[in-house]
Amino acid sequence: MVREIRLLLLPPAGPWPRTGAAAVVDALRATTTACALLGHGARAVIAADDEQRARRLAAERGALLAGEVRGLPPPGFDLGNSPAAVDRAAVEGREVVLFTTNGTKALCAASAAGAAIAAAAVNAAAAARWLSHADEVLIACAGEAGGAAFALEDFAVAAYLVQLLARDHPGIDLDDAARLALEVPAPLRLVREARHARDLEALGLAADIEFASRADRFDVVPLVTDRGAGWARLEPAPA
Amino acid sequence: MVREIRLLLLPPAGPWPRTGAAAVVDALRATTTACALLGHGARAVIAADDEQRARRLAAERGALLAGEVRGLPPPGFDLGNSPAAVDRAAVEGREVVLFTTNGTKALCAASAAGAAIAAAAVNAAAAARWLSHADEVLIACAGEAGGAAFALEDFAVAAYLVQLLARDHPGIDLDDAARLALEVPAPLRLVREARHARDLEALGLAADIEFASRADRFDVVPLVTDRGAGWARLEPAPA
Repeated sequence: MVREIRLLLLPPAGPWPRTGAAAVVDALRATTTACALLGHGARAVIAADDEQRARRLAAERGALLAGEVRGLPPPGFDLGNSPAAVDRAAVEGREVVLFTTNGTKALCAASAAGAAIAAAAVNAAAAARWLSHADEVLIACAGEAGGAAFALEDFAVAAYLVQLLARDHPGIDLDDAARLALEVPAPLRLVREARHARDLEALGLAADIEFASRADRFDVVPLVTDRGAGWARLEPAPA
Repeated sequence: MVREIRLLLLPPAGPWPRTGAAAVVDALRATTTACALLGHGARAVIAADDEQRARRLAAERGALLAGEVRGLPPPGFDLGNSPAAVDRAAVEGREVVLFTTNGTKALCAASAAGAAIAAAAVNAAAAARWLSHADEVLIACAGEAGGAAFALEDFAVAAYLVQLLARDHPGIDLDDAARLALEVPAPLRLVREARHARDLEALGLAADIEFASRADRFDVVPLVTDRGAGWARLEPAPA
């Protein structure tokens, strides 16, 4: 039963606050991609906070290597960071190491402070259901530029999650950012208004924006089940 | 003619970005108080980033000493940080050194990066008029906890300023936070919804919340006209 929601508009500069349950949102695109990978049957997603570490982890484990630098997959990567392009045949039963500019770093940092999941529009109802078992919920936007800048698409999804939780838990305690989240009607429409959406369009990745804007494509909650220095392993949370 | 607005939901952790014109908002209460002091005839407000520095500056200059620590004036201060309590008879023609937990620090930091003003609901139209002469406008929320946490009251006033500027400058380029500011109808009503407003009520300072929520009480723009290490001098900008 949720009593309190804190919403971080940017990842913390220092260590993350400890909470009962943290949801990391990088709507365009890392947490959406993590949902798509597990939703299409990947066994685990290993989020890495560094490109070279991602390459090493994938090689050691015989895992697929996925992700982006400046929006596109670096040379030698098996997959990009495109949730709309995830192909069940390619990922089913596989481990996938994922490295991205903002989201995978935030997942690694968040999981150092407690139970953490990847949340997105595409798994919003499932994520809210998982979060609703905690007393104190933290929802964190991964942001832009390595977490230094606010990203509207992350706020849009975070606001949608706050609205789902607040509807089911009347009288819940909201911090100022979560309170602001209640003020924005139909927040998911703002995903496509974000500056980063225009950048992705320019790269020919408009399908990912549409993919990331629609709620509840997947009934999966990517939960951190193991972690080490610079990596966090996500697997589907038990229903 | 404004071409671009950037909105900082929190003060930068490092140096401030350079822009044509920066407006710092600490609605409850430092920038509202700066407006009230100059609006009631104080000659200058000297924002200090440290309590001991504020005490020294006031003693050296024979200035009034105003401000708060945990909401209330420390021993030896002439005035608190209460905009509703500013008395023209006490401040007219005087210099006032102001130290507060968040706002005066943000004013000192912002003015190191370029032209900076103090903005609040109480001088919103005058502040927007002043900002509208710049190409690139930065509006920065001072936040809570020394700038570490988002403050809804600062966003409310910043959003009101963005809306004033966007109305008068169609086609203006907005960053993601400024874009979000357009989504909140009648933002000044949110000043009283902020967590800090409840803290002030508990201290018996509810009059300041009402004072800080109403637009355009003063036609004054507190502009940084001089600065040094840890202080910034604000005087009414020429009309």
